Amino acid sequence: MTGTVEVRVRYAETDQMGRAHHRHYLVWCELGRTALMRERGISYAALERDGVLLPVARVELEYRAPVFYDEVVRIHTRVERVRSRSVVFGYHLTRDEDETTVARARITLASADADGRPRRLPGAVREALDRLARPEGSPPRGAA
Amino acid sequence: MTGTVEVRVRYAETDQMGRAHHRHYLVWCELGRTALMRERGISYAALERDGVLLPVARVELEYRAPVFYDEVVRIHTRVERVRSRSVVFGYHLTRDEDETTVARARITLASADADGRPRRLPGAVREALDRLARPEGSPPRGAA
Amino acid sequence: MTGTVEVRVRYAETDQMGRAHHRHYLVWCELGRTALMRERGISYAALERDGVLLPVARVELEYRAPVFYDEVVRIHTRVERVRSRSVVFGYHLTRDEDETTVARARITLASADADGRPRRLPGAVREALDRLARPEGSPPRGAA
Amino acid sequence: MTGTVEVRVRYAETDQMGRAHHRHYLVWCELGRTALMRERGISYAALERDGVLLPVARVELEYRAPVFYDEVVRIHTRVERVRSRSVVFGYHLTRDEDETTVARARITLASADADGRPRRLPGAVREALDRLARPEGSPPRGAA
Repeated sequence: MTGTVEVRVRYAETDQMGRAHHRHYLVWCELGRTALMRERGISYAALERDGVLLPVARVELEYRAPVFYDEVVRIHTRVERVRSRSVVFGYHLTRDEDETTVARARITLASADADGRPRRLPGAVREALDRLARPEGSPPRGAA
Repeated sequence: MTGTVEVRVRYAETDQMGRAHHRHYLVWCELGRTALMRERGISYAALERDGVLLPVARVELEYRAPVFYDEVVRIHTRVERVRSRSVVFGYHLTRDEDETTVARARITLASADADGRPRRLPGAVREALDRLARPEGSPPRGAA
Repeated sequence: MTGTVEVRVRYAETDQMGRAHHRHYLVWCELGRTALMRERGISYAALERDGVLLPVARVELEYRAPVFYDEVVRIHTRVERVRSRSVVFGYHLTRDEDETTVARARITLASADADGRPRRLPGAVREALDRLARPEGSPPRGAA
Repeated sequence: MTGTVEVRVRYAETDQMGRAHHRHYLVWCELGRTALMRERGISYAALERDGVLLPVARVELEYRAPVFYDEVVRIHTRVERVRSRSVVFGYHLTRDEDETTVARARITLASADADGRPRRLPGAVREALDRLARPEGSPPRGAA
């Protein structure tokens, strides 16, 4: 399953090259995954209140085309892989107007406790993410 | 007493007008007051651990001249007024190269507890800020 | 006339106090005024291509209540005053959920040319802003 | 050759997890490479005035340990590879206090003209970067 959110490039996100500065793509990906999780009933805010942090552990990001002030970017987010202590999200960013690819990314979050130590993802969260990771209509892993 | 810190304008702080975006001046002022407080033995980090938050309650900021990538800005910070639950800092930002005035600001912080409710500044903090607010060599308020 | 836009507080906009950092309110106000101007046919992007810059010259901002991750903030923007070389916008920020006032602001933009020198607002822009500044249905200034 | 710069984590760079938000590492790496280039006489600002842009084309970033408000991070930057239209920088970020590794990154910049089209790096820039890429004291490529 892929979730999609749109973001309009803010003036404050441009730099003197006249395009969106590259750091903001990480923020847009964050919007993509929190929206996807919220849709599936996983509230980031609630997770944190329960002592589960999901800091970013690894980023791979390819910038394919610049985006400019006031352009609308679509962030297509999917869960690529779920493990006991981490989850990998894949991103495809497109320019709304002409559907060109703007960027592709893969971002790994590591599950940590309130003190930053590795911890297992809560069962319910892992199951919800697992469902997101499966192609639509496919059986759960291990199902006969 | 005035504390001074320098900050070099980062590429990431520019916008497509080719100058530092106006929101970053608030960050620079924050650097100015935390540096000034640190010099006087008031650690912002320690305050927070003790349950004292100092959120910004009011900003007045006048932008006088743009600053550009790689320029050095000096932030001159002083305490203007201390009350039981708030403190007002005054700022004068100058361009290092030619000492022109870049901006002037007045920022009020309100003392709050961990839940965001108003609370009195701890006595030691208030005294340290009071000392900063007095002209060098002047007696404490109320001194004969 | 008042324009209204909504913004959901981003995770990346929080700070370790657990609330949106105060600098982001300036970005939200920027969203408010560019949306209002776009509605009235004034494109910020087009203005800049025509050599008209609108840097921020002055900010007054009062923070009334903190806002938290994932909360929706409404930015109500109106034009308060238009002059030959500047325009003043007024802002009222409310929390969507309970309509409490989050902040109030007044931000002055100064019209400048591509080199940053003061210049008059183009006539059409000034007229469009003037219309925004008038109470709905009121006659233009100078009308009999 | 490795260039080293220090950056103190700003309050504004923290998020509600209480650590520096992951997007800021990209800004710190940018500080690292612009400082390294400046040391070698390559001014980013001058390059842009000459119509050479160096947008980020690819990021790989591994986060190894969180960093907190007021901590000092050292950014060790080196040139890993220079090509006719791109340059790859490698980064090692350490916490100043205990020298633990905070992050490692590899960031590719692509040379572009003012309109964003790929262009060759100017000869002098390429040579300066090539010198940085060689181990200290090693002969230039192609030398007998």
